[in-house]
Amino acid sequence: MQDFLNALVAELKLITQRGKVADYIPQLASVDPAQFGIAVCTPSGDSFTAGDATTLFSIQSISKVFTLTMALGKIGDGLWQHVGREPSGNPFNSIVQLEHEMGKPRNPFINAGAIAVVDAIMMGHEPKECLGEILSFVRYLAKDDSICFDRVVAASEMQHRDRNASLAHFMKAFGRLRHDVDKVLGTYFHQCAIAMNCLQLAQSGLFLASDGIDKTMGQRIVSAQRARRINSLMMMCGHYDGSGEFAFRVGLPGKSGVGGGILAIAPGKASIAVWSPGLDQQGNSLIGTLALERLAQFTGWSVFGQK
Amino acid sequence: MQDFLNALVAELKLITQRGKVADYIPQLASVDPAQFGIAVCTPSGDSFTAGDATTLFSIQSISKVFTLTMALGKIGDGLWQHVGREPSGNPFNSIVQLEHEMGKPRNPFINAGAIAVVDAIMMGHEPKECLGEILSFVRYLAKDDSICFDRVVAASEMQHRDRNASLAHFMKAFGRLRHDVDKVLGTYFHQCAIAMNCLQLAQSGLFLASDGIDKTMGQRIVSAQRARRINSLMMMCGHYDGSGEFAFRVGLPGKSGVGGGILAIAPGKASIAVWSPGLDQQGNSLIGTLALERLAQFTGWSVFGQK
Amino acid sequence: MQDFLNALVAELKLITQRGKVADYIPQLASVDPAQFGIAVCTPSGDSFTAGDATTLFSIQSISKVFTLTMALGKIGDGLWQHVGREPSGNPFNSIVQLEHEMGKPRNPFINAGAIAVVDAIMMGHEPKECLGEILSFVRYLAKDDSICFDRVVAASEMQHRDRNASLAHFMKAFGRLRHDVDKVLGTYFHQCAIAMNCLQLAQSGLFLASDGIDKTMGQRIVSAQRARRINSLMMMCGHYDGSGEFAFRVGLPGKSGVGGGILAIAPGKASIAVWSPGLDQQGNSLIGTLALERLAQFTGWSVFGQK
Amino acid sequence: MQDFLNALVAELKLITQRGKVADYIPQLASVDPAQFGIAVCTPSGDSFTAGDATTLFSIQSISKVFTLTMALGKIGDGLWQHVGREPSGNPFNSIVQLEHEMGKPRNPFINAGAIAVVDAIMMGHEPKECLGEILSFVRYLAKDDSICFDRVVAASEMQHRDRNASLAHFMKAFGRLRHDVDKVLGTYFHQCAIAMNCLQLAQSGLFLASDGIDKTMGQRIVSAQRARRINSLMMMCGHYDGSGEFAFRVGLPGKSGVGGGILAIAPGKASIAVWSPGLDQQGNSLIGTLALERLAQFTGWSVFGQK
Repeated sequence: MQDFLNALVAELKLITQRGKVADYIPQLASVDPAQFGIAVCTPSGDSFTAGDATTLFSIQSISKVFTLTMALGKIGDGLWQHVGREPSGNPFNSIVQLEHEMGKPRNPFINAGAIAVVDAIMMGHEPKECLGEILSFVRYLAKDDSICFDRVVAASEMQHRDRNASLAHFMKAFGRLRHDVDKVLGTYFHQCAIAMNCLQLAQSGLFLASDGIDKTMGQRIVSAQRARRINSLMMMCGHYDGSGEFAFRVGLPGKSGVGGGILAIAPGKASIAVWSPGLDQQGNSLIGTLALERLAQFTGWSVFGQK
Repeated sequence: MQDFLNALVAELKLITQRGKVADYIPQLASVDPAQFGIAVCTPSGDSFTAGDATTLFSIQSISKVFTLTMALGKIGDGLWQHVGREPSGNPFNSIVQLEHEMGKPRNPFINAGAIAVVDAIMMGHEPKECLGEILSFVRYLAKDDSICFDRVVAASEMQHRDRNASLAHFMKAFGRLRHDVDKVLGTYFHQCAIAMNCLQLAQSGLFLASDGIDKTMGQRIVSAQRARRINSLMMMCGHYDGSGEFAFRVGLPGKSGVGGGILAIAPGKASIAVWSPGLDQQGNSLIGTLALERLAQFTGWSVFGQK
Repeated sequence: MQDFLNALVAELKLITQRGKVADYIPQLASVDPAQFGIAVCTPSGDSFTAGDATTLFSIQSISKVFTLTMALGKIGDGLWQHVGREPSGNPFNSIVQLEHEMGKPRNPFINAGAIAVVDAIMMGHEPKECLGEILSFVRYLAKDDSICFDRVVAASEMQHRDRNASLAHFMKAFGRLRHDVDKVLGTYFHQCAIAMNCLQLAQSGLFLASDGIDKTMGQRIVSAQRARRINSLMMMCGHYDGSGEFAFRVGLPGKSGVGGGILAIAPGKASIAVWSPGLDQQGNSLIGTLALERLAQFTGWSVFGQK
Repeated sequence: MQDFLNALVAELKLITQRGKVADYIPQLASVDPAQFGIAVCTPSGDSFTAGDATTLFSIQSISKVFTLTMALGKIGDGLWQHVGREPSGNPFNSIVQLEHEMGKPRNPFINAGAIAVVDAIMMGHEPKECLGEILSFVRYLAKDDSICFDRVVAASEMQHRDRNASLAHFMKAFGRLRHDVDKVLGTYFHQCAIAMNCLQLAQSGLFLASDGIDKTMGQRIVSAQRARRINSLMMMCGHYDGSGEFAFRVGLPGKSGVGGGILAIAPGKASIAVWSPGLDQQGNSLIGTLALERLAQFTGWSVFGQK
């Protein structure tokens, strides 16, 4: 595995078409697209890393996996009254659907849905308390207390919040949010601004690779059924309008972030994190997806194959 | 397994809410909703059946799995110029998306996409020849030469073709179909009107459970990669706007038909067919889905779990 | 007036940007875009013509004014159960709206609406009879028995019918059409293929300029209320998604056709027909609209002004 | 005229189906639906009133006519870079269209468009200054310095701003607004909260009935062309998705408000204001529209008729 990862890093370094770095806030726009990191963690406790695997990046939407897990822990299946679990189609359709479905977001991984999840876990508390809880949970999963919010990124997101503010007010107009829009957005942007590296991220996903147990800690995080369901949501909705493509090419549940990271789960085999800042047209890491496709071919890992 | 299936049949018989039988053509509307059948076939050659597992029904959209397999065999990845591979969202969006994406259907399992697949495999031939080829392929997979089209159903579909004719002319207007609309529709409706029973259907899906090989025949049908990709499409798009729900509840790739059948694949484990005519709001078999959910719980089969 | 029209013809001849001739059928694509004609007919019987005012062209959608008038005569306000009377927004929205409103077209001047009007006036008769009636009515209004269908254009439209066939089957799927789709389309395409010149067209619209009476014939064609209502529909919906622009610039009710003709009504003043084959982006005659804008400025005719 | 208006008031009082009072803010929800007022002002200086013609009500969207007039005065045709001039179709489509057209509102009378107009006239000034200017202009047109904002209504609108805040942030995300969203909304809600009575409102519209001149003041307010164009926009877009219906039934340009008022213009004849709080399904005054329909029948006023 380590040899393969080293060779993969060397090969991917040669690629010149690396996608387009997110540029809606300056903090993301200035990241060097030449970077690439990968970490593979197994339930048995092995870790393999290569490239820029210990460089911090903004996990952005990957954080939605963690807040979804928290929300299911807090309110269980009641969450599904606030958010659906179907793929959302293209970005154009997302707002059409939001209107058509009376402000109920289609799934917890589109922005509207993740905002609704944040509203659900706030439960009357202030953003500060809620954010403390989120950070504690992520540190616990990653076994690393050094993980923090990047407050500059969060502040910049808040300043450029118009698209998300539009979605949040839209849902509020349908009575879908219980807290103040700006407080929900502030919490949401901080959550997205968590800075992690590939190794921390792969560590955090281990419970999803073993039916809810992080075997390296010897701790059950969620029930087996819940872990499987979170994986199903990652598979169906984890890459926006590129989810079908990711399932087709990689064949594993995964969640991408606009910072260029992807967390992928090979059930029973490994938790994998990749990072490369350049994005494809659907907003998913171009080189990161390619790396996962190669890894899946090399290992034979695919939920759609026989072993 | 046999005991479980027998008990399942007994339990499901007691349910009174059985969904709504498709009523857009009289031949489907008159089917008795009390029926339920299930067949589980394993790569090692075991078959388990229970309930109305040998009663013929109209497989309808499940046939799209077979024509997709044929199309990939004939024109390979060139097929993806004619049809996409992303989930389509709700029915309302499907036509919006079809316009937004210039007549290119989102995936091969929505009606527009399946019509485009039929157009792709006709390759200048007459419907009769094309249909002969489809039937031969299905009989080969099912190891049963008695399988036939239900011509009464096909004729009735043709008579009530307006919704599909609208889609087909729409695609034709964008230059997406090469053959005469009525010939494509005639072929499409016959394909959908194949009559099979659960046992035949489960037999036909075995190659998808073993990375492209039907081990009971000792024949490779498609490459491992292709089998996995077909499974990924079934997972992402196999249940229309209920695909996310099916993945969440059952956790296996599956394709449903409006006749009440579902073909589901547990890679490495089994090919499963269920049938019960009553449909839920998304047009998928209500009791059939429930049966698969129970079976998945009993066996632990789920592509999202560790074993 | 005659001097003004002559000067206008001379001025417009110099314009090189003349729009794009409709090219979806070869018969329209081959028309020379340099042509321009205008005819102004007053209730008192005066006629002024200039340019190519006696050259025949395909009136296309302008015919919808005449079939709407016939439909209201035959079934009165019952027509509004089949078709609405609101503007339809952009072309993209038209099909979205058609689905959203269960197959009921928004107004009688979009294609779907005009097809529904044809279906309404067929009343069980064959296309031939219905077309005879339409032609008689148009000849009567134009006081000219030489007016005919251009059968080559009609046949070509039928051959390239996919977009309209899609709309018609869509409406039929919602139970909105009572006759066979191909018969309705055949009638619709013939109606659109009526060949007229500017003078004939301006003559035909006189009844709309005088509250339902063609004073030159001394005949009441429709009631005053009905004439006003037809004018209101022309104002609101007569130029597709350019209706607001036409009202803003010209200030008169008008109906355009993709052949480059426009019929405009200055109530109490005149019936006006212009023709120039090049179209703007909304599918309305570019030079024709400009000519009407100049005429309205010269005469002061505008329904939004004080005299 | 006076006798007719008196009789009309008596007749309309008997109608029990009076529509549904707007209830999205308590201040509007508590208005008595039994009220009805009408005022007819002629260019020659005659005024006729009947019913509750001197009761103040919230003019709401009718104010958009005045801010549009101001905006055209300030920045002329440059305004059309910020907002279109086409009807918008149904409410569902409005947000679809806003996305489809990159955040540019279709016309100045839908909410998004009116917000864009407010942003355009703020020109870097604070809401207070801008509102002072709006109020001065309205008082000048109405010849009545007692007209004021209803600050309780404005505050309540601000509190329930989510739908409009969603639109404003959406436009801002496309770079369509230059000022702070909350400042624009605060200005917009105050403008809508102007309290006027029918007589004041009819007085204010006189300049639109006489090609831009208020003859009772002997003042030109706008050019003849601009007055006609404002009328055309009222005709095409003044009643949301009921604009076609209003043109069909009443035949005059008009602008409605959710407070139950309508300002209608009979060019060359009169400026008319009606008010009755109950709304139809499109959000236009039910009894008010009926009153205008009767008045138009009685007087023969219609822009689509010959005199």
